[in-house]
Amino acid sequence: MATSTPRVVSQANAAFDAGCAWIDGEYLPIAEARIPITDTGFTRSDCTYDVVAVWEGRFFRLDDHLDRFEHSYSALRLKPPLSRAAMREVLFECVRRTGLHSAYVEMIATRGVPPAGERDPRRFVNRWYAFAIPYVWIVKPDDQLAGAHLVVAREVRRIDPGSVDPRVKNFHWGDLVRGLFEAYSRGGTTVVLLNAAGEVTEGPGFNVFAVADGALWTPQAGVLEGITRRTILELAAARGLVARVVPFGSEVLARAEEIFMTSTAGGVMPVTLLDGKRVGDGKPGPVTLALREAYWAAHSDPRYAQAIEY
Amino acid sequence: MATSTPRVVSQANAAFDAGCAWIDGEYLPIAEARIPITDTGFTRSDCTYDVVAVWEGRFFRLDDHLDRFEHSYSALRLKPPLSRAAMREVLFECVRRTGLHSAYVEMIATRGVPPAGERDPRRFVNRWYAFAIPYVWIVKPDDQLAGAHLVVAREVRRIDPGSVDPRVKNFHWGDLVRGLFEAYSRGGTTVVLLNAAGEVTEGPGFNVFAVADGALWTPQAGVLEGITRRTILELAAARGLVARVVPFGSEVLARAEEIFMTSTAGGVMPVTLLDGKRVGDGKPGPVTLALREAYWAAHSDPRYAQAIEY
Repeated sequence: MATSTPRVVSQANAAFDAGCAWIDGEYLPIAEARIPITDTGFTRSDCTYDVVAVWEGRFFRLDDHLDRFEHSYSALRLKPPLSRAAMREVLFECVRRTGLHSAYVEMIATRGVPPAGERDPRRFVNRWYAFAIPYVWIVKPDDQLAGAHLVVAREVRRIDPGSVDPRVKNFHWGDLVRGLFEAYSRGGTTVVLLNAAGEVTEGPGFNVFAVADGALWTPQAGVLEGITRRTILELAAARGLVARVVPFGSEVLARAEEIFMTSTAGGVMPVTLLDGKRVGDGKPGPVTLALREAYWAAHSDPRYAQAIEY
Repeated sequence: MATSTPRVVSQANAAFDAGCAWIDGEYLPIAEARIPITDTGFTRSDCTYDVVAVWEGRFFRLDDHLDRFEHSYSALRLKPPLSRAAMREVLFECVRRTGLHSAYVEMIATRGVPPAGERDPRRFVNRWYAFAIPYVWIVKPDDQLAGAHLVVAREVRRIDPGSVDPRVKNFHWGDLVRGLFEAYSRGGTTVVLLNAAGEVTEGPGFNVFAVADGALWTPQAGVLEGITRRTILELAAARGLVARVVPFGSEVLARAEEIFMTSTAGGVMPVTLLDGKRVGDGKPGPVTLALREAYWAAHSDPRYAQAIEY
């Protein structure tokens, strides 16, 4: 199955310290990793991706990420040129080459490069890329002590699922980046967007949770079904926390005792300021901290973790 | 000013027959032109672009395209690393290298590559790319004789301007590509999307016009303000045609005597079938054909055309 990916005896190499990518069958240092400028994955954002973490030398929930990725590219009618087994092998090898024990590992399926003069996307040969770089934190661990300042966007709305399905992980971040600039202009560090109905959706790269009215809230729909989000819901259920996975407005955030963001890029990240006002007592709360601890502990749970042989 | 673009004595070269790109100060054959996989222009679609045509050895409305491009990148708070004069020189040189007398010339400004571990887009160094390839037709001239079969999407809506501003030309084509697949499944060749209010917007790479009730209709807002669209409105005014640049629903298309699409990639393209039904008598109509002729004639009008010295 993995015929298109040469099995190699890997060797961590200084050239790969900053990251390793796989492009067209070759492993390259991340700084040299390039894609065709005419790939419609770029020029039409006609692509999907997934990001999986490596923590302490182990992939976290790799099969869940591969399942979601398969759902995403199938929804877009993309056929990556590699089998799942071959993709998996490339992801492992990218990490091995870097020698990184904590890494941010991304795979991308694109529609590909149009043959000369062709506009029909059914006739393009689809492409697949992957890379591993050092672990990325949306909020760095030191900054998590004080907590993030989350702004609820007023000037931009989340792209509607009737236009682009957020469950198909995508690079359509125009609204999210616009929101980020709004947050900066209002003194915040990051942003959460509402939909046209005024319901809370998600932020640039993360899902949102609130602790309010004795329950743990997170939006039901109109968001990426994050693997970290799912993990938190599982960990919360195991602790007997009541979860309210429902649509809700920003008033729930406004009255929350705790708020946190979840992402493969940073785990569970406390929010201590919302639109300039303290959340609870303005410090990361006990539910957030307990779930964060449980989240990181899960990274060595054999049900979730898959060791890399370096 | 143009310091970062070396002036070169150009020479058409067979290596550039399929196209020439400018990346990081180098002119490259299009097949070798690549961008960093970590450019957020790709991984966040955090970028804007513009496309200008070369026809019979002349750029068409280049300054209008550069004006729009400047508006677009400013709206996204991007600062391309080249001056307008330098960009212009690169566009000319890309075409000269190909030797093409009809070409599709694209420039792209991106947010750029994040420094290691950085998530704040204000700290990225913005990038700029350009390329020239043979002229692209959304509908090829031969197929324009019969006319296109346009489908009004039912399963997907155009991304709302409250999320992503369509006047800032962008690669957020998820909705448009989804619509294209819907059109194919319904026997069409291309698609036009409605907004949440049921109003006609645009299609993948083109604006839409209808001839109905003695007037020329095109949507007022929620669409790219196409340069071809503008040219058609100017040519229509010069001929005393009444233009209705207003919001309208698909019922105007349904009762139209003529429909056509406009784009830098193909000019004025007749639509002869709408959702499987004939438009008018099912042949390209007289208004469409007159405007198409005037449009192509304008390409040698010195007010619009700028000659390239090959």
